[in-house]
Amino acid sequence: MRHVGFIGLGTMGRPMAKNLLKAGFQLTFCSRRDDVADEFIAAGGARVATPADVARAADAVITIVTADAQVREVICGVNGVIAGTTAGKLVIDMSTIGPATVREIGATLAAKQVGFLDAPVSGGPWGAEAGTLAIMAGGAADDYARAKPLFEAMGKHLFHCGPLGSGQTVKLVNQMVGGGIMTLLAEGLVLAKKAGVDVHQLVDVMSVSSANSSLLEARGRKFLLADQFVPGFMTELMRKDMALAVSLAQTLCVPTPVAAGALQQFTSALNLGLGELDFSSVVKVAEAAAGVKIAAVKSS
Amino acid sequence: MRHVGFIGLGTMGRPMAKNLLKAGFQLTFCSRRDDVADEFIAAGGARVATPADVARAADAVITIVTADAQVREVICGVNGVIAGTTAGKLVIDMSTIGPATVREIGATLAAKQVGFLDAPVSGGPWGAEAGTLAIMAGGAADDYARAKPLFEAMGKHLFHCGPLGSGQTVKLVNQMVGGGIMTLLAEGLVLAKKAGVDVHQLVDVMSVSSANSSLLEARGRKFLLADQFVPGFMTELMRKDMALAVSLAQTLCVPTPVAAGALQQFTSALNLGLGELDFSSVVKVAEAAAGVKIAAVKSS
Amino acid sequence: MRHVGFIGLGTMGRPMAKNLLKAGFQLTFCSRRDDVADEFIAAGGARVATPADVARAADAVITIVTADAQVREVICGVNGVIAGTTAGKLVIDMSTIGPATVREIGATLAAKQVGFLDAPVSGGPWGAEAGTLAIMAGGAADDYARAKPLFEAMGKHLFHCGPLGSGQTVKLVNQMVGGGIMTLLAEGLVLAKKAGVDVHQLVDVMSVSSANSSLLEARGRKFLLADQFVPGFMTELMRKDMALAVSLAQTLCVPTPVAAGALQQFTSALNLGLGELDFSSVVKVAEAAAGVKIAAVKSS
Amino acid sequence: MRHVGFIGLGTMGRPMAKNLLKAGFQLTFCSRRDDVADEFIAAGGARVATPADVARAADAVITIVTADAQVREVICGVNGVIAGTTAGKLVIDMSTIGPATVREIGATLAAKQVGFLDAPVSGGPWGAEAGTLAIMAGGAADDYARAKPLFEAMGKHLFHCGPLGSGQTVKLVNQMVGGGIMTLLAEGLVLAKKAGVDVHQLVDVMSVSSANSSLLEARGRKFLLADQFVPGFMTELMRKDMALAVSLAQTLCVPTPVAAGALQQFTSALNLGLGELDFSSVVKVAEAAAGVKIAAVKSS
Repeated sequence: MRHVGFIGLGTMGRPMAKNLLKAGFQLTFCSRRDDVADEFIAAGGARVATPADVARAADAVITIVTADAQVREVICGVNGVIAGTTAGKLVIDMSTIGPATVREIGATLAAKQVGFLDAPVSGGPWGAEAGTLAIMAGGAADDYARAKPLFEAMGKHLFHCGPLGSGQTVKLVNQMVGGGIMTLLAEGLVLAKKAGVDVHQLVDVMSVSSANSSLLEARGRKFLLADQFVPGFMTELMRKDMALAVSLAQTLCVPTPVAAGALQQFTSALNLGLGELDFSSVVKVAEAAAGVKIAAVKSS
Repeated sequence: MRHVGFIGLGTMGRPMAKNLLKAGFQLTFCSRRDDVADEFIAAGGARVATPADVARAADAVITIVTADAQVREVICGVNGVIAGTTAGKLVIDMSTIGPATVREIGATLAAKQVGFLDAPVSGGPWGAEAGTLAIMAGGAADDYARAKPLFEAMGKHLFHCGPLGSGQTVKLVNQMVGGGIMTLLAEGLVLAKKAGVDVHQLVDVMSVSSANSSLLEARGRKFLLADQFVPGFMTELMRKDMALAVSLAQTLCVPTPVAAGALQQFTSALNLGLGELDFSSVVKVAEAAAGVKIAAVKSS
Repeated sequence: MRHVGFIGLGTMGRPMAKNLLKAGFQLTFCSRRDDVADEFIAAGGARVATPADVARAADAVITIVTADAQVREVICGVNGVIAGTTAGKLVIDMSTIGPATVREIGATLAAKQVGFLDAPVSGGPWGAEAGTLAIMAGGAADDYARAKPLFEAMGKHLFHCGPLGSGQTVKLVNQMVGGGIMTLLAEGLVLAKKAGVDVHQLVDVMSVSSANSSLLEARGRKFLLADQFVPGFMTELMRKDMALAVSLAQTLCVPTPVAAGALQQFTSALNLGLGELDFSSVVKVAEAAAGVKIAAVKSS
Repeated sequence: MRHVGFIGLGTMGRPMAKNLLKAGFQLTFCSRRDDVADEFIAAGGARVATPADVARAADAVITIVTADAQVREVICGVNGVIAGTTAGKLVIDMSTIGPATVREIGATLAAKQVGFLDAPVSGGPWGAEAGTLAIMAGGAADDYARAKPLFEAMGKHLFHCGPLGSGQTVKLVNQMVGGGIMTLLAEGLVLAKKAGVDVHQLVDVMSVSSANSSLLEARGRKFLLADQFVPGFMTELMRKDMALAVSLAQTLCVPTPVAAGALQQFTSALNLGLGELDFSSVVKVAEAAAGVKIAAVKSS
C-alpha cells in the first residue's frame, strides 16, 4: 500500500494528501482544478483523468468529498473507482456520510473483492495541515491494518471503531454533540448580552467552569466575540452532518429532541446566508431571534 | 470583615465555611442540625439561634441555601438577617437564584444601608472542599472589594461581573450551557449504543475531538459509562437552575429553543425519580425514550 | 349584584361592559381615556376616579387588564379595589394571568371577607361583541352562582372549572394548545410553499382532513394566506399566555417540549416587531427561518 | 380504466377495494393472505400470483402499502408491476411515502410510457369504509382525469395538487400538523390533570374555544379520556409519516422546530410499545414524562 490514489483535493483533502507525500507515499490523483493539479504535480504527484484511472494506478484509493451522492458517484458511478480497482485493493472513504450509504458501497466493492473502510476525520483544516487529525475508521480489521500507515501520515488519534459504518456513526455522534454545544453557546451569549452582562468576561468565567468545552476554547474569543467567521468548518457542512446524525437516530428509533432542535438552528442559518462561514456563525440565528448583537458595543 | 456569619451549612456550605475557618475568619452560624452544629463548634465556630442573631454578631453574612423562596425567608423573613443587620454591614448570598429576586432583596437591604452581593459559585462539592470554586459576583465595586478576602478563602477563580444580579446571570448562563451539554452527551451516547458502537471508545474519540467538554471529562467515564450517579450535583438543582435561566430568557424576550428543550429532559428526570442523583443521570431519560441502556453489556 | 363595577375598558373590556349595560346592569367604571369614558357615560355608565371608588359604588367589580402585575396593582395597590370593597362583595378578574397570582390575591381579599373569582375568557374581540365568549371560572360555588347573571350577559359557554385558579389553568392550557397549533400551521404552510405546492389548495385539503382546527378555519384564509394580520388577538398577548402556561407546567414539574418549542417562536416574533399584530403573524418567524413567503406569487 | 388491479389489501386497502367492486369496477389482485383472497374472490375479484400478473390483467393498478421500500419493491422489484405493465397503462400509488421516491418511480415508469400518480389518502379506516376519504393526487392532468372515476368510488374530497409528488407533499404536511396537534393535546391534558383540573370539562371547554380541532373532536373523549387506543391510525404509521415530513423539510432547508419536537414524542412512543395503538396513545409518552395519568380517578 505504498501507492496511494487521492480523490477530493479540497479544504481537507489538500493538506491530507500533502502529508501523504511528505511521508513518502507515491500519489496519483485526479482533479478538475488545474491550479490544484499543478501544485500536486510540482510536489511529486501524478495526475490522471478519472477516479477509475486513479484506482488503476494505486493500491489504495482515498476519497474525501462532500456528501453521500458525491461518494456514490466517485466510487460507483461511470468512470468511478469501481471501474478501475481490482481484487485485493483497498478503498478508503474519509468523507462524512451516512452509515447506510457506507454499507451499501462496501457491499458493491466486496462483490469485486475490494476492501472498503469508512474513515471520517475530526480536527478541521488546521488538524489536516498539522497531521494531527482524529481518524475514526470502520471496516474489517485487516483492511484497517493495511490502511494504518496512511492514517499515521495524516492523523494523530487513530481509532478502529468496529465494522463498516462504525467510523461514520462515531463521527456523526461527535458532530451532533459539537453542533449542539455551539447552539447552546449562542443562546447563552445572546442571553447574557441582553441581560447586560460583559460577554468577554462571561467567556472567561465559562472557560474555568463546568460549561467549558473545546468549542468554547477554540471559537469563543476567536469567532463569537470577534464577530468574524472565517476560515473554519462551514455551516453548511455542520448542518449536513447534524442532519445525517438526526436522520440516523430516526432510523434507529432514537429520540434526540435537543440535537434535533439544534439542527433547526443550522437549517435557519443556511437561509440567513451563513452557509459558507464557520459554523459558529449559527450565533447569528440566535442574535436575529433575540434582536441583539453580541459584539455590539454598549452605548455609554 | 473578619467576623463572618454563615447560614446554609449544606453540601456546598459546609466545606466553604470550613475554608473560612481555616483562613482565620471568626465564624458565627445557625443550623437546625445538631450534628453539623457540633462539628462547627468543635472547629471554633459560634452557634446562635436565628439568622437575625447571626447578623447581629457578624460583619458580613453569607447565605447559601436552595432557592429564591429560602433566600427571601432567611434574609427578609421573620428573624431573618435583616432583623439583625445594621448600616454598613454586608450580606453575601451565594445561592443560585433569579436576578430579579436578587435585586428585590438588594433594594430592601439598601434601605437599611446594608450592602448586598450575589455571588453564586461553580465547581461542585469537590471545588468547595478544595477551595477552588469559581465565584461570580454582582454588586457595588466597594462591596465586592470588602468581600474579596472571604472569596479568596473559598474560591480560586474570582469574578466581579457587574451590578447586582450579574453574578446570577453569569451563573445561570453557565448552568444553561452545562445542562444542555449533558443532554447532548446523553443523546449521543444513547444513539451510539443503539447503533452498536463501543461507547467507551466513543468517549475516547470525543475527548480528543471537537465535541470535548469539561463535563465529558468529569462525568463521561465516571458517571455515564459507569452507570452510577453519586455523589455529585443533584438533578433537581440543575433543573432548578436551568428553569431559572430559561425563565430569565423569557423575561428578557430571548428565545432559547435548544436550552428550553434540554430543560424538559431534566423535568422528566425528576418524575423518573432521578432528582437526588447527579444531573448526569438525565441520561436515563434518553435511555428510557430510546429503549436502550448505555452500560448494558452486548451479548457475545 | 345588579350594580357592576368595571375596570379595564380595552379591546375586550369595552364590548363586554357594553353587553352588561345592554342586559340592564348598572355600571360604574374608571378609565384614563376620556373618549372611552364619554362613550360609556353616554351609554348610561357612571365614571369615578379610582378602582377603590369603583369598588365602593358597586356590588361586584370586574377587572380585565393585561398581566399579573396590572391585576395586582388594580386590586391590591394604592387606591386599588381592596381599598373600597367591603365584606360580602365580589371581585371577578377576567384577565389571563397565572393561577398562583390568582390564589395570592384571593387570599388577600378573603381576609376582608370579599369573594374572588378568576374568570378568563376565550373568543376574541368578535366573541366579546357578540356576547358569545367562553368564560372559564374558578372559585367558590356560591361566588360563581352570584356571578352567573353577569357571565350570561357577556358569554355563551360558561364553565365553573373548580376552585380559585382553575379558570386560569383551563384558559392557559387552551392557549398553549392554540398557540402551538398556530406554529404548526406556520411550519406546514412554509414547507408546502417551499415544496412548490399551492398553499390555497393545501388549506382546502387540510380543512377536510384530520389536521383541521378552529384556528385553520378562522385564520387560514383570512390571515395566513392573505398575508394580513389585523385586527386580531395580539402576538404579545399570546406569547404572554403561552409563557404563563409553560411556566405553570415547570412549576408543576410537567415537561411540555412541544409547547415550549412553540413558545420560542412567539418570543422570536416579538423581536421581529410582530407583537401588536394577530398572533397568526408568527408565520413570519417561520418564513424568515425558511427564506420563503407564503403569499408570494410564483413567477410564471 | 374499468379493470383495476389492486395490491395492498390491508386495513385501508380492503375497504377501498371493496368500494371499487361496489362501484362496478372489475378487480384483479394479489395477496399473501388466503382469508383475504377468499373474501375478495367471493366478492367477484380475481386473484393472481404477483404484482406483475396484476399489471398484465388490469388497465390501472393501485398500490397501497406501508413505506417507501415496499412501494419500490411492489412496483419496480422482481415480479413487480413494471414487469407486467405496458405503454398507456396507469399506476396509482396510494401509500404515504416521500415525494423523492415518487418522482424516482415515476421516471422509471415514464421510460416505459406508463403513467403514474401519487394519491395518498386521509380519513382513516372509517373513511375508507364509508368511501369518504380525502384523496390528494399528484401527477399529469390527463392521468388524473383517467383516475378520477376510481377516486370517486373511494373518496369524497378529491384534489389534484400538482405535478408528481405533490399529493405526498400535501399529505405529509397534513400529517405533520395533525401529529403535532396530538402531542399538544397530550401536553395540555397532562398539565391540566397535574394541576388538578377536571380533564373532561377541559375537553368541553376546548371544544368551544380557539384550541378546538378535528383531532380533539374525534379522539378527545373516545381515546384520550377513555384511556383506550384501538382501533385507529397506528402510532408507527404516524411516526413514519412525520419522519417523512420532517425529512422532506430538511431536504428543502425548511426549519420545523415544533414539528421536529413532536416527532421525537412519537419516536419515544414506539420504544414504549405503543406502535400498534392509535397515534393518540402518544399521550402516554407525556404521562410517563410527567408522572401522571389522565384517566386516573382522583382519590376523594
